[in-house]
Amino acid sequence: MELGLLYSAGKDSTLAALLLEEFYDVTLVTGHFGISDDWQHARETADALGFEFERLELDPDVAREAVDVMLEDGFPRNGIQRVHEHALERLAAEESGFDAVADGTRRDDRVPTISRAQAQSLEDRHGVDYISPLAGFGRGAVDRLVDANLAVTVGPSEEISRADYEAELRTLIAEREGPAAVGDVFPDHEQTYVTDVRR
Amino acid sequence: MELGLLYSAGKDSTLAALLLEEFYDVTLVTGHFGISDDWQHARETADALGFEFERLELDPDVAREAVDVMLEDGFPRNGIQRVHEHALERLAAEESGFDAVADGTRRDDRVPTISRAQAQSLEDRHGVDYISPLAGFGRGAVDRLVDANLAVTVGPSEEISRADYEAELRTLIAEREGPAAVGDVFPDHEQTYVTDVRR
Repeated sequence: MELGLLYSAGKDSTLAALLLEEFYDVTLVTGHFGISDDWQHARETADALGFEFERLELDPDVAREAVDVMLEDGFPRNGIQRVHEHALERLAAEESGFDAVADGTRRDDRVPTISRAQAQSLEDRHGVDYISPLAGFGRGAVDRLVDANLAVTVGPSEEISRADYEAELRTLIAEREGPAAVGDVFPDHEQTYVTDVRR
Repeated sequence: MELGLLYSAGKDSTLAALLLEEFYDVTLVTGHFGISDDWQHARETADALGFEFERLELDPDVAREAVDVMLEDGFPRNGIQRVHEHALERLAAEESGFDAVADGTRRDDRVPTISRAQAQSLEDRHGVDYISPLAGFGRGAVDRLVDANLAVTVGPSEEISRADYEAELRTLIAEREGPAAVGDVFPDHEQTYVTDVRR
């Protein structure tokens, strides 16, 4: 079965790929708005890990709407959720050709989060399975699995190459409001970037 | 990491074992109340699949309370939930020696179901990770994974050897209210019993 996994090259989505690879033909899929080339970091990681890779074109209007929401809120949560839902819809669309779609959301994630009803709706409308392989794993279990299975680089968000659309959303905010606004919306938090896996 | 998985020899808990075996030292654990020897079916299946096996002694008072609830309700849901929570508590207790405990609950299960708050509480009180590897898989995805990975026998509940405590609860009900009462509480539904896995 062909499965497309929304991929950021971070530890959660990489761990999700490892959990699924025994059971599906996994393609790592990184959404991008055509704003920057940051998605290429994800392709490099996918190549290093031996996974198929595709990029997924997202609607730039959704990026602009998400940035509007984030600037108004002063925090990224609702904007990120909006973009994640859009990316899942694009991934599940018939043109993508996948039998199943997946993401790296964990049990304890506040955002993005896909409810049971949203999952069922996505499956019914697009005729695919939606799978969140980390939905039954808490933060501690994920951390221990990451330690045991992944080589990871950790650092502040602005210094770590982000492969997914978060980098593009940061770029959009900096263009519109200046670089300082990025730090207001995305409070300092550590990002991770996977460099290798142990199989 | 040593992981104990509540095991019934049914398709869900067997699939859960396959999802976890790459990442944990998995022991299949079947709870029983000392009422019957049905747990031996689970040991046979665990042996055939090449997993470690343990049985877990449960409190017979919990079985009696669960049967009281099921007879009063006329359906098994709340009684099954009570027994499942008790089995998880026993499995997570320090004496069991597991770093992580798991079960085969799926995204779409109505019962048993462990909420996010219950999961967190179990982890905090016992210092273990609680993992439900099928929590991010819907019914369709589970069915397709079962078809691809397991050899399964399907039939009416009363004709399929149940390895877990459901068999003992049925026995208790029959002893107290006569065999006909079993069919009243457990409406006719198909049970599955795994006979082999494809690795």
